[in-house]
Amino acid sequence: FADYMVKDVKEGNCFRADKLLEQHIDKLIESGKVSKEEQERLLTIAQNADAYSAKELGDKLKELGIKAPITGNALTDPFPFNLMFQTQIGPSGHSPGFLRPETAQSIFVNFKRLLDYNRERMPFAAAQIGLAFRNEIAPRAGLLRVREFLQAEIEHFVDPKDKDHVRFSEIKDNKAFLLPREKQVGKAECIHMSFGEAVEKKIIDNQTLAYFLARSQLFLEACGVNPLKLRFRQHLSNEMAHYAADCWDAEIFLRGYKWVEVAGHADRSAYDLKVHAKATKNTLEAQKALEKPIIEKIVEAAPVMKVMGKAFKRDAKVVKEHLSGLEKDDVLKLEESLKSGEAKIVAGGKEFTLLPEHVQIKKYDKKISTESFIPNVIEPSFGVGRIIYSILDNAFTYVGEGKDRRTILKLPAVIAPIKAGIFCVVSSDELQAIAESIRKGLVEEGLMCQFDRSTTTIGRKYAKSDEIGIPYGISIDNDSKSDNKVTIRDRDSWKQIRVPIEDVPDIIRNLCRLKISFAKCLEKYGEFKQ
Amino acid sequence: FADYMVKDVKEGNCFRADKLLEQHIDKLIESGKVSKEEQERLLTIAQNADAYSAKELGDKLKELGIKAPITGNALTDPFPFNLMFQTQIGPSGHSPGFLRPETAQSIFVNFKRLLDYNRERMPFAAAQIGLAFRNEIAPRAGLLRVREFLQAEIEHFVDPKDKDHVRFSEIKDNKAFLLPREKQVGKAECIHMSFGEAVEKKIIDNQTLAYFLARSQLFLEACGVNPLKLRFRQHLSNEMAHYAADCWDAEIFLRGYKWVEVAGHADRSAYDLKVHAKATKNTLEAQKALEKPIIEKIVEAAPVMKVMGKAFKRDAKVVKEHLSGLEKDDVLKLEESLKSGEAKIVAGGKEFTLLPEHVQIKKYDKKISTESFIPNVIEPSFGVGRIIYSILDNAFTYVGEGKDRRTILKLPAVIAPIKAGIFCVVSSDELQAIAESIRKGLVEEGLMCQFDRSTTTIGRKYAKSDEIGIPYGISIDNDSKSDNKVTIRDRDSWKQIRVPIEDVPDIIRNLCRLKISFAKCLEKYGEFKQ
Repeated sequence: FADYMVKDVKEGNCFRADKLLEQHIDKLIESGKVSKEEQERLLTIAQNADAYSAKELGDKLKELGIKAPITGNALTDPFPFNLMFQTQIGPSGHSPGFLRPETAQSIFVNFKRLLDYNRERMPFAAAQIGLAFRNEIAPRAGLLRVREFLQAEIEHFVDPKDKDHVRFSEIKDNKAFLLPREKQVGKAECIHMSFGEAVEKKIIDNQTLAYFLARSQLFLEACGVNPLKLRFRQHLSNEMAHYAADCWDAEIFLRGYKWVEVAGHADRSAYDLKVHAKATKNTLEAQKALEKPIIEKIVEAAPVMKVMGKAFKRDAKVVKEHLSGLEKDDVLKLEESLKSGEAKIVAGGKEFTLLPEHVQIKKYDKKISTESFIPNVIEPSFGVGRIIYSILDNAFTYVGEGKDRRTILKLPAVIAPIKAGIFCVVSSDELQAIAESIRKGLVEEGLMCQFDRSTTTIGRKYAKSDEIGIPYGISIDNDSKSDNKVTIRDRDSWKQIRVPIEDVPDIIRNLCRLKISFAKCLEKYGEFKQ
Repeated sequence: FADYMVKDVKEGNCFRADKLLEQHIDKLIESGKVSKEEQERLLTIAQNADAYSAKELGDKLKELGIKAPITGNALTDPFPFNLMFQTQIGPSGHSPGFLRPETAQSIFVNFKRLLDYNRERMPFAAAQIGLAFRNEIAPRAGLLRVREFLQAEIEHFVDPKDKDHVRFSEIKDNKAFLLPREKQVGKAECIHMSFGEAVEKKIIDNQTLAYFLARSQLFLEACGVNPLKLRFRQHLSNEMAHYAADCWDAEIFLRGYKWVEVAGHADRSAYDLKVHAKATKNTLEAQKALEKPIIEKIVEAAPVMKVMGKAFKRDAKVVKEHLSGLEKDDVLKLEESLKSGEAKIVAGGKEFTLLPEHVQIKKYDKKISTESFIPNVIEPSFGVGRIIYSILDNAFTYVGEGKDRRTILKLPAVIAPIKAGIFCVVSSDELQAIAESIRKGLVEEGLMCQFDRSTTTIGRKYAKSDEIGIPYGISIDNDSKSDNKVTIRDRDSWKQIRVPIEDVPDIIRNLCRLKISFAKCLEKYGEFKQ
C-alpha cells in the first residue's frame, strides 16, 4: 500500500504523482490544442498513470514538463509513500502498530477456523464489513476518496481446478456492459453481453468470478443504480496485482465525476494463503476426495531408534529427521548403499555412517483417497461509502419547473430507511389515535415509519416526505373513522389506493420486500381518486 | 482520557497504578490474614482506586508497600498516560491525528443538524455505533478489556427543566436490582425496587435516566442475561465525571470475572454542548415555546449611521458594535449623558464623543414567546463486545454427566444468528428436495438457517445444532412425502410439534419475533412423539 509522491522542491508541498499526470493531461485535452493522434497517446498515458513505476512516472512528468501546481516550481523525482497510518501500541513506545489498509487479511488469517466451521467442505465463503484506513496524499472528490472508509468483502474459497459455480445457471443469461482490457486502448467502448457468453469466450476468467459480477449488478440495480450507468471494467495487465488471475471493477457513472469504481472483483489465486502460510509456517490447505482412490507405492527409510540411539546418542534425532525427509529415489539409493554394508549421510552439518541395523526400509502400497490443495480466492470487495454516494446520486431527481420545482429522492423501497410516512389529513384526536395504531403496527413488523404530527397541509407533508425518500404515504381522513380504510400513496407515481387499516402492515411489508408491486396493488384495490 | 501509570524503576516495565492497588488488595483479602475491620477499609480503597488522584494513588501504593510484580523492584510515582492513539495525517508529517477514544462527540458536533432534522423539536435522540480506540496500559480479561472496541450510544437531548419521559409509565413498575452509592461502602448490597419508586425517592435522578435503565434491562434480559445476575450500580461521587448529574452502570455477573460493566447510563447535563459551543464559538441551543408570552421592555441605542458615518468615518462600525452590545442600564446612562449634550465612550481602544444626533434611543415592548436553552443529554452507552461476551457466558450450558455431557448454547431465538436447522432423517433425493424448498422459504422470510446435508444420525445432527445455539430444528422424514408435514423441535425443551410444510416459515418467524411461544405451539399442534 504505497502511492508515488512528488514534492515541490522549494515549498515542500506534496502531490500524488499519478494524479498530477492525469490532471495535466485532462487540461491539455480540454484546451483543444493537441492533435487527435496526440490525444489518443495522452489518454493511454492517463489510463496507465496509477500503474506506472516510479521511473516511468518521473519520465512522463519530465516529458510533459509538469511543474508544481500554483507555485510552478520544479518537482522532485517520484518516491513511494506508505499509505498505512502508524501509531504506538501500549505504554512503552516500542511497539509500532498500523491501521489496516484493507479488511481482507483478517479472513485469510482465520482461514483454518473458517474451514473448520464449514466442516472442512469446499467451496465456502466468509464475508465481513469494517473500517479501513489509508493515509491518502490528497483526499478529494467529496466522499469518494476519504482516509477512513467502510469496506465490505466476501472471500469465496474455491478449488483452483474447479472454478465453476453451482448457481451460475441462475445468472448466466443476465447481460451487462463489459469493458475488457483490450477495449480500453484509446476510446473505451463497452460490449453488452451475457455472463454466460463472457465466460464461454474467456472474456471473464471463470464462472465464480462472473457469478459475483452478476450478483453485484443485481445488488446495485436493486439499490436504484441506473443499469445504463453501470459497467464492469477489467483491470489492465499492468494495473492488476501480479498474483491475480483476473480482476473486474464495477464502475458507476456519477454526475460530476464520470466513471467511479464502487466495487472490485478479483480472482486473487492462492496468493494470500501462500504468503500467510509461509510467514506463519503453517499449512493453509483444504482436502478433497479423489474421484478414484490412487494406489501409491511408498518407500520409506524408518529409523530403528533403539539401535540408533545407542550409536548416535543425542544426534539420533537429527538423523531421524534426515531420514523422514528423504524422497523415494533417495531412499532407494540409501537401500543400495546399505546392502553394500554401510551408507554415509550428512545431517545437521555432520557426517554419519549408517549401518543396516540402524534403518529399516519399508515398501508398501498406500491407498490415497484425498488430495490437498491451496484454495484460490475470489474476492468481491465493496466501498460502502461510494455505493451510498452512488445510490443518492441516482435517487436525486426533480419534478416541475422554476419555482414549482420539487426534489424527490427516489430511493427504492427495499433500501429506503423510512418505509412509510403517516399523515392525518385534518387534525383531530380520533384520527391521531388511528394514525398511532398504524404506526405501532408498522413498527411491530420492523418497518420504520415517520408519523408527521405537524399541522401543515397534506400536500406539504407529501412534499417533505418525497424529499427524504419515503416511498409510501399513509393518509387518514374523516372517512377512515367510518369505513376503517386509509389511502396509501406511491411516491413515484403519485397514485393512491384505499385499503382496510388492518391490511396496511402487510401491504407495506410486501411492497418493501418486492413481493408485490404498486401496479399490482392498483389492480387489486383500484386507483383511488379524491 | 488518561490512566495513571507506574514504572518498575529498574526494568522500565509499565503498570496501571489502580489495577496494581486492586490486585494487591484482592490478594491480601484472599490470604485471610487481615482483620475484618482492615478488610472493610481495604475494600473501600479498592473500590475507589480508579477515582484517586495521582497523589492519592501514590500514597496508597507506598502505604501498602506495593512493589513491581515479578521483579519486586520499587515503582515510580504514578503519572498520567494519554490513552489516545496518535498518528500522522497526510504526507507532511506535521498534522497529528488521534483515534477517537469514544464515539459520543460526533453526535454533539452534529447537534445543530440533528435538531434541524428533527424540525427543531425537543426532546430528541440520536444513536450511533462505531469503533473506539484506547491505548490500554494492560489489556486483559480476554475480550473484556481490549484496545479497539465497538461502542453503541444514544444521546437523548432534553430540556434541563423537564427530564420526565413520555413513555415512563410503560416501565415504571419494572423492578431491578439497584446499588446506589451509599450502599457501596464496605459490602455491597443491592435493593430490589421499581423504577417508579426509585425516581420518586430520588435514588435515580430523573425519569429519562430511569427509562433508559429499564430499557437496557429489557434488552439485556431479552438477550438471555439472567435477571439475577444483572444489577445497576450508581457511580460514586468521586468516580463520576464532575459535570455529570447522575450515572449508573449496568453490570453483569460473569463466570470468572465477577461484576463487569457492560453499559453506562449518564446524565451528562449540558457539559458537552457547552464545551463544543465555547470551542467553536457557536451557540448550540434549542428553543421552546413559553406557556405564556412574556412582555419585555426593550431599551436600545440605535446608531444613526448616516450622521455617524460622516463624523467617525471608518470608526463608525466600531461605535455601532459598541452600541449594540450595551446592556439596558448602560443605554439608560448613555441617554442621560446625551441629554446633557454629549457622551464619551471607549470603543476598540479609542475614545469617541457621541452627540444626540448620532444615536436614537428606542424604547418599546417586545412580546417574547420562546425561550432558548442548552439541552441536557442523557447517554446510555453500550460496550458491544462485553454484551456479546455476557450473552455467550449466559447461554453456555451443559446437559448430562460425564461422557454423556453435552454442550447447549441457549441463545434466545430472537438473537440467535441461525434460526433453524434443517435435517433429513434419512438420505433421499425426495426428502432433500423438500428440505431445499423449506430452506428457500425461510431465506425469503429473512430467516437464516442451516441445511445439514451430512449423512450422520438425526441425534448427532441435533447435538451439533444445539452446540452452536440454533433454537429450532426442522426434520423431514419419509412420512413428510405423504402427509406434507415436518416436525419442529425446540432446542431448550427437546419437545416436538408436527406441522404442515407451508406453515413452517410463519411459525419460525413468529417464534423468533416472540409473537408466539413454543408452549403455545404445543397447545395448538399437540406434542409430537415418535
